[in-house]
Amino acid sequence: MGRITEKRRILRIRDGAVTARTDTLAGEEPLEIRLNGRRLAVTMRTPGDDFALAAGFLVSEGVLGRPEELTRITYCSGTDDSGANTYNVVDVRLAEGVPLPEFSLERNVYTTSSCGVCGKAALEAVRTTSRWPLPGPAEAAAAAEAAGPGPRLTPELLAGLPGRLRGAQRVFDRTGGLHAAGLFAAGDGRLLDVREDVGRHNAVDKVIGRALHEGLLPLAGTVLAVSGRASFELAQKAVMAGIPVLAAVSAPSSLAVELAEETGLTLVGFLRGTSMNVYAGAHRLELPSSSAAAPAAAPSAAPSASSAPSSSAASA
Amino acid sequence: MGRITEKRRILRIRDGAVTARTDTLAGEEPLEIRLNGRRLAVTMRTPGDDFALAAGFLVSEGVLGRPEELTRITYCSGTDDSGANTYNVVDVRLAEGVPLPEFSLERNVYTTSSCGVCGKAALEAVRTTSRWPLPGPAEAAAAAEAAGPGPRLTPELLAGLPGRLRGAQRVFDRTGGLHAAGLFAAGDGRLLDVREDVGRHNAVDKVIGRALHEGLLPLAGTVLAVSGRASFELAQKAVMAGIPVLAAVSAPSSLAVELAEETGLTLVGFLRGTSMNVYAGAHRLELPSSSAAAPAAAPSAAPSASSAPSSSAASA
Repeated sequence: MGRITEKRRILRIRDGAVTARTDTLAGEEPLEIRLNGRRLAVTMRTPGDDFALAAGFLVSEGVLGRPEELTRITYCSGTDDSGANTYNVVDVRLAEGVPLPEFSLERNVYTTSSCGVCGKAALEAVRTTSRWPLPGPAEAAAAAEAAGPGPRLTPELLAGLPGRLRGAQRVFDRTGGLHAAGLFAAGDGRLLDVREDVGRHNAVDKVIGRALHEGLLPLAGTVLAVSGRASFELAQKAVMAGIPVLAAVSAPSSLAVELAEETGLTLVGFLRGTSMNVYAGAHRLELPSSSAAAPAAAPSAAPSASSAPSSSAASA
Repeated sequence: MGRITEKRRILRIRDGAVTARTDTLAGEEPLEIRLNGRRLAVTMRTPGDDFALAAGFLVSEGVLGRPEELTRITYCSGTDDSGANTYNVVDVRLAEGVPLPEFSLERNVYTTSSCGVCGKAALEAVRTTSRWPLPGPAEAAAAAEAAGPGPRLTPELLAGLPGRLRGAQRVFDRTGGLHAAGLFAAGDGRLLDVREDVGRHNAVDKVIGRALHEGLLPLAGTVLAVSGRASFELAQKAVMAGIPVLAAVSAPSSLAVELAEETGLTLVGFLRGTSMNVYAGAHRLELPSSSAAAPAAAPSAAPSASSAPSSSAASA
């Protein structure tokens, strides 16, 4: 763990041509910040500069202001399955006399949901609490066959979503300052709902909450499109609502991709114009038949190519 | 309270020309989500669809899955100074037999720091805990006079920061997926530090934490430049570290602007090319002398124009 970036095999689709390639992802892992041994906050972060992150967080919260108020910062406990240190738990010791903040929820705490002290625990938590497991490749194929011929999820359909999402954003037009989450029908790309918020996780929660009220969960047969990036938290929200496809205009994080792979979520990123990257769950996409028929012909076959979705890819 | 958008008087600078105008901001207010009367989470959100937000949050956390598991959602308590309901606290009642989540920090809780249940309380918390009050217009003018002629904070200097920030981002180049925070010298625009993270608040904390270790707090005489938007949380972090200027590539939220006004922080948004908006603290900017000498000549003088920074603005 503790990686700033991570390499993954992905499918790149551009103007209908599909190629397999290796992509570099921004690392995302939980960090638990302890103060004098007591848990204060957990945040999803990119590993690196963890001591600075912990100290800066405490400055922002008014706990620290001068270097001498800090005795030391150390990595502590927090081991993964193999007993190795995860380097995801830091403990900050204050100098004597520096007042401790109140350990209340009103202040001093921010944590993304469902995160343990290692990424694996976070993935596990989502997988075990999810009520509607997403269908894997075999199940999805069987369901598609049962449904017979009809509209399928194509790159063309996905390519049209960001424009429709943007067109449906009412407040963004006036402020330029809001994230959007849009729910679309996977069959025909019809817009089912769109919500805006300063926080992208809130925009997604608003869409899911309305669907709950209307008795629409699980949201099978839908695509969730989001402005901006796809973090672990957004992938979690899609999985928990039974949404099989998450499409983001910008980059996904490493942990979002791992969660998608583990749960069967289709994760598409960098969805811009007719170009997009498929990070996981390519089995739900109807790709050009030529590319599905041809063997993988990527210039350099990575060791992981056989297990990656590149088996259905061809260079253009 | 409870506004989706908010109008503010700002200064728009484009190619050296300064005009006063009214800008529309995305609303930002804290929302406290209670479950069966007990506080579960506080999140900064754009008001509206609050019941859906609360329900969707509980779906994401695995608490809710079907509409019948929910008895009702209501706005409760939470009054402002005048005794009016803030509509910033919602209580979700579960149907009998639906298991409550563990009220622990490991899961189920996410909250931005320092937020009360109304925006005003959040502003107050920052103002009272800040160790280094930022100088107001009079103090800043006196300090500038005392410093004598020399480099000043100009729109030209600010315009160069996003390019330098982007140029210093090492991981973004490989992933396209990271936020950046850069600390620059206000005098000559020299890059002092840059950090990247999947979370923009983490990138800022990393910069501030390193400065603490080096004994550089308060960070007077610096500009904090951030990729993306300027939320309340980022403005808070700048104020708490004594940074007098926050410059963002995208839009600020309403609460970020309010905090900047209250604390004397200079807040610049939509910093793109030679164009930028000044939302608060224009007293720190050296604007073209013609615009400073001329009276406000905006086409429609808003009622709030006299108290807004437009007094030093002229249409181009």
